[in-house]
Amino acid sequence: MALHANSDIRAFFEPRTIAVIGSLNEWGGLGYTAINNMRRFNFAGRIYPINPSYKEALGLKAYPDVGAVEDQIDLAIVITPKQKVPGIIDQCAQKGVKAAIIVSDGFAETGESGARLQRQIVEISHRSGLRIMGPNTIGTLNTENGLVTNPYFISYDKIYKGNIAYCSQSGIVGAQGQPLKDQAYPISKMCDLGNKCDVNEVDLLNYLSQDPQTSVIAMHIEDVKDGHKFIDTVRKVAARKPVLLLKPGRTERGAKASASHTGSLAGSERIYDAAFRQAGAIRLNTWREFWEIPRVFINQPLPRGNRIAIITFTGGVGVASVDTAEECGLTIADFSPATVSRLSKLSPQLARNPVDLGPIIPVTDDPLPVLEETIAAVLDDSNVDCVTATLYASSGAETPVYMDIFDRVMKNVTKPVSIWIYGTELGPMEELSRQVQGRGLPAYFDIELAIKALATAAHYSRVKSSLNQGATGISNIRIS
Amino acid sequence: MALHANSDIRAFFEPRTIAVIGSLNEWGGLGYTAINNMRRFNFAGRIYPINPSYKEALGLKAYPDVGAVEDQIDLAIVITPKQKVPGIIDQCAQKGVKAAIIVSDGFAETGESGARLQRQIVEISHRSGLRIMGPNTIGTLNTENGLVTNPYFISYDKIYKGNIAYCSQSGIVGAQGQPLKDQAYPISKMCDLGNKCDVNEVDLLNYLSQDPQTSVIAMHIEDVKDGHKFIDTVRKVAARKPVLLLKPGRTERGAKASASHTGSLAGSERIYDAAFRQAGAIRLNTWREFWEIPRVFINQPLPRGNRIAIITFTGGVGVASVDTAEECGLTIADFSPATVSRLSKLSPQLARNPVDLGPIIPVTDDPLPVLEETIAAVLDDSNVDCVTATLYASSGAETPVYMDIFDRVMKNVTKPVSIWIYGTELGPMEELSRQVQGRGLPAYFDIELAIKALATAAHYSRVKSSLNQGATGISNIRIS
Repeated sequence: MALHANSDIRAFFEPRTIAVIGSLNEWGGLGYTAINNMRRFNFAGRIYPINPSYKEALGLKAYPDVGAVEDQIDLAIVITPKQKVPGIIDQCAQKGVKAAIIVSDGFAETGESGARLQRQIVEISHRSGLRIMGPNTIGTLNTENGLVTNPYFISYDKIYKGNIAYCSQSGIVGAQGQPLKDQAYPISKMCDLGNKCDVNEVDLLNYLSQDPQTSVIAMHIEDVKDGHKFIDTVRKVAARKPVLLLKPGRTERGAKASASHTGSLAGSERIYDAAFRQAGAIRLNTWREFWEIPRVFINQPLPRGNRIAIITFTGGVGVASVDTAEECGLTIADFSPATVSRLSKLSPQLARNPVDLGPIIPVTDDPLPVLEETIAAVLDDSNVDCVTATLYASSGAETPVYMDIFDRVMKNVTKPVSIWIYGTELGPMEELSRQVQGRGLPAYFDIELAIKALATAAHYSRVKSSLNQGATGISNIRIS
Repeated sequence: MALHANSDIRAFFEPRTIAVIGSLNEWGGLGYTAINNMRRFNFAGRIYPINPSYKEALGLKAYPDVGAVEDQIDLAIVITPKQKVPGIIDQCAQKGVKAAIIVSDGFAETGESGARLQRQIVEISHRSGLRIMGPNTIGTLNTENGLVTNPYFISYDKIYKGNIAYCSQSGIVGAQGQPLKDQAYPISKMCDLGNKCDVNEVDLLNYLSQDPQTSVIAMHIEDVKDGHKFIDTVRKVAARKPVLLLKPGRTERGAKASASHTGSLAGSERIYDAAFRQAGAIRLNTWREFWEIPRVFINQPLPRGNRIAIITFTGGVGVASVDTAEECGLTIADFSPATVSRLSKLSPQLARNPVDLGPIIPVTDDPLPVLEETIAAVLDDSNVDCVTATLYASSGAETPVYMDIFDRVMKNVTKPVSIWIYGTELGPMEELSRQVQGRGLPAYFDIELAIKALATAAHYSRVKSSLNQGATGISNIRIS
């Protein structure tokens, strides 16, 4: 691997030219679908369909093999029966292709004969310098240039540009398996590493740490190829950008399942865990956290401490969320006398944290100025490091007013805010969530997740300053 | 309180006649809205609007006071300025009204003068036998008779009939604060206890334990009026129906917040926790769990043990979910040789738990029979106590086929199943979820929740048999 420079990884995400090698049958041929996906997402580069049975596909000239293309090829996407893969990879190497994504499966993940095939590929990679992602992967996605190497049908045609990189060792983290449009996740890059015969999590971290579009990295990994190198890399990257890790192996059996799925050693999983944390990786526990927590890092400053203020329209939820805050390593802020007096002017009942607007709103002619003054007062308090506020979604008519409120109160504020959305219909809740996120604020349907997102930001804030001070140990905040 | 029989509580849920005392202004008057809500939900009883300024409302004759109504009144809903409430309650008592829900707020929750007003009400209740719910409550909901006492606008007009009772001390647990229709929660009763000046959690548990429409009780409480009585009641009820408890106070600060919100003693919270668990209450941690976990108890048998099989279409999710299962107190089932051989016939890769159908589905002409045989094989295995299976939601065309599969494989099975749904568009995912739930299977968008639901069922299974054997201690499974 040391043969290859990290900049090689760029070809997987920023190719100017792509060869798609696979079935061009317009009724579900995987090569055809891959090309069609890139068309629908407006891929900015040139695409060359490769298949000896076709002269043309999707209005593009088809070539019998990659060697026949006159252009230089940055990236080859290989979606053929596995037996053909080594020959094709050899042709790619001879052609001087920079990078290949092998979508085909049936390699090391299936047993010895597959592993033998995979070793042939690795050998070509080492010999030629051709970098390989996979096999057994859906490859990459880049919202900047419309790249999506996934050869399965995607039911939507918009992915929101943003600054989260989602990386995985599973096809579930891809446009064909997630409601990316409906959820409006602000994405820079996505990547499925598959079997990691060549390109691995270290290559990816190095690339993403340099990627100007990426400001937070959410990574699902099952195994780590080289623990020491990974830990060194995480430490380097986490000093600049949050690295959030969803990794099985928190339990004995989880570690075993992970090992048998990937062929790595189970024993090492538990040992590395402490080292991951020491290096500044933040461990997540669920897939929902994996998808939703990274949004707290987009467009928002890091909290300077761990004191949270919670504003709800319902006392019951506010009180119940105190446990969540405490369990995540936050503390409930004690409001300053100035804030207490400012809130008391609105209503004496408001001057405590969590702030419950519930009794005030029904008896106020126009509750929105009360909401605005409450958020402003709490944000101004120097005893408060971060805020979870509540919005109620109804018809959608109130959305622009909400947005104006946040535009005003957030203007001179350098504290992060997360939003808990509730309501009586999922449609308006989902739309309000997209709108709020469009303004750069992370929105959640679970108040616990809204709070945990801020706890993760507070945790990373400490990790980052600790790493940048050259400290070797990270303070012991537990994100449970 | 001992003056009143528990059957009094029926009037709060099963009134034949209701007096609604409040503003009848058709532009947002709370009395008007309450009546209108009951009309929209087809309330089966007679409604009497009470307001001296009106002769008529919504086509119903209005009365100046409750005493003027010729009919007997089972339930009064009081939604007036707080100063008027004691007088109205007195009139209700004189009229022989059985039960009153006081929606009005500004009582004990706001300080001494409110507490004084509340004591006047309690005094009337004790003297007359009139049972009172609240004040500061949105009251009750009953899907059996269309009762909904909530005086706030509800944006939908269908709530699914089912067997879950959701009880709370917060207005958030009500039709005006939750997407009950979109989520298709199968509901029997809902109740907000408010300030609990008379009717409290013990009355409610006793009523719900006898309610034939209720088979599981999800209860959010902030304080307990009489700890010993509550624990005795839980023990009695939990022997028949699961009692799931969302109660703040897991942390020191959470207990303090809860105490200051309700006026109870913080110290006792922590002490009671162990007792709650000993009595068989199952503690939940989040609002999402509160809403979604009870569904596992509807229409399904309890698991006989804690061995789970997990079937996914994606290895990455399956492997990551092993940790969740173990952390919830489940163990990953070891398949019997018969199951291994049955699954191996489909593909050698399938014969391990979690079962990953991911590599099989794309290369199978018709993957649905493979899915069916996999679920059937796993359900047949005597080493398996419960199953989480996966469904992919796309256009919705596959929904009837999925339903047929479950109809067949579940026919002779006495094990619970939970479903993890994923897909690329929220609309079809939500629709499939409603369909699956309509067939009696609990569906979740988070695999962790699908697993945790089964863990909760396994936990309750032990609680129930332990309580029914007269044991005093409950085995120590932790639902974390």
